[in-house]
Amino acid sequence: MQTPETVTASLVIIGNEILSGRTQDKNLGWLAANLTEIGVQMREAKVIPDIEEVIVSTLRDHSSRFDYVFTTGGIGPTHDDITARCVALAFERDLIRDPRAVALLENHYPTGELTEARLKMAEIPAGAELIDNPVSAAPGFIVGNVYVMAGVPRIMQAMFDGLKAGLRSGAKVHSVTVTATIGESFMAKGLEAVQNAHPGLDIGSYPFYRSGQVGSSIVLRGTDQDELKVAAEKVRDVMRGLGVEPIEGELPPA
Amino acid sequence: MQTPETVTASLVIIGNEILSGRTQDKNLGWLAANLTEIGVQMREAKVIPDIEEVIVSTLRDHSSRFDYVFTTGGIGPTHDDITARCVALAFERDLIRDPRAVALLENHYPTGELTEARLKMAEIPAGAELIDNPVSAAPGFIVGNVYVMAGVPRIMQAMFDGLKAGLRSGAKVHSVTVTATIGESFMAKGLEAVQNAHPGLDIGSYPFYRSGQVGSSIVLRGTDQDELKVAAEKVRDVMRGLGVEPIEGELPPA
Repeated sequence: MQTPETVTASLVIIGNEILSGRTQDKNLGWLAANLTEIGVQMREAKVIPDIEEVIVSTLRDHSSRFDYVFTTGGIGPTHDDITARCVALAFERDLIRDPRAVALLENHYPTGELTEARLKMAEIPAGAELIDNPVSAAPGFIVGNVYVMAGVPRIMQAMFDGLKAGLRSGAKVHSVTVTATIGESFMAKGLEAVQNAHPGLDIGSYPFYRSGQVGSSIVLRGTDQDELKVAAEKVRDVMRGLGVEPIEGELPPA
Repeated sequence: MQTPETVTASLVIIGNEILSGRTQDKNLGWLAANLTEIGVQMREAKVIPDIEEVIVSTLRDHSSRFDYVFTTGGIGPTHDDITARCVALAFERDLIRDPRAVALLENHYPTGELTEARLKMAEIPAGAELIDNPVSAAPGFIVGNVYVMAGVPRIMQAMFDGLKAGLRSGAKVHSVTVTATIGESFMAKGLEAVQNAHPGLDIGSYPFYRSGQVGSSIVLRGTDQDELKVAAEKVRDVMRGLGVEPIEGELPPA
């Protein structure tokens, strides 16, 4: 079997409201978990303001560095929705009123309600592929390797669910989590030895405090499931060596 | 009165666990809101993996572009905590076992419990200023304009609360929110006119769907409170012109 390739992605979150603290982003965590699930590795996420030059330069930069670039935000009907225009600029396309998008909107809104403002949501870079929006019709779109999605989480999630089957998936990163009810510092030396013996894996230690209980979840991640199994057993041995019984997975909520 | 200057900041979130979806970041929203509160404008946030070259180059880049750079994550006792080392590299400082940090840890842990692993949390770039950690003693630190904080939200928050009085604060961005129980597209033309008449303000439109009710919150932000008042009243007029009574602030939870 050929080793599957690594497929990378980034997320560009577009919106002043995230940087001002007005809106709490809920897309990063969801998309990260869902990309991991299908074998695409999110390598970077960036939150940027609604400023044309910043959006254009970020899109060009990310497009050249990652296999897939996902964006959220800025594709609504108001003046502060400038993502489509910026994507067109970044990839030197014309911004056109896309007849397919117009048809989708015409089909969605009752007669007479497809206002000029709403038609703005059909303005899309020439040559783009549309992303289906089963929630509110106004489509996302794809230009090159850039996937432009809505910022509203339930719309973004519906868009991604529809498009993910079309993504090239790579080596899937599997993970094993083992938890101990001791501080991570006690395991530090042992964990480092396991990490050094398995440089192809990524071993993270995440401390927690819950109901007065100190503990640490050790997360091993990698594409080789056999190696993961071996290394996870070594982590359990580190815990047992400290007189602590390893718990599989995260600690259940108190 | 002299116009207060603009003070900018960025946030660098360091951690594979955020990019894999294992951990949901809770620091961005909190820090964004708290910086806004004291007149510091967050201009960018970036989530990056635990990779030395990426951390070093990101820190150098952000340090040169923003007045303040805050980092979260990677300052614990285990092998995957590499932030201090990367800050030292980025600013060409030695990484030293800081006697002040050692004293803080000695004071915190019972005799005999300050292990070698825990002492790793006292390894800090030479010449750094320490950031107090009232939760678990291990300090954050400041090198140049880079503020290195913990990733655990309650520790990060306690660190920031302690250091914020020492930050240079700039022109405070005020905001007024007016909500209407109609879709944002109906207001699009009117809002654009208000935005064009007040280019110094940032007017955002944020649609919502709650308990079957479509609505839009219009958020006006800017440093000039008088101008904000005038523009907010124009936004209310846009709503009234559409036969909708403006609601002050966000819609209360259903």
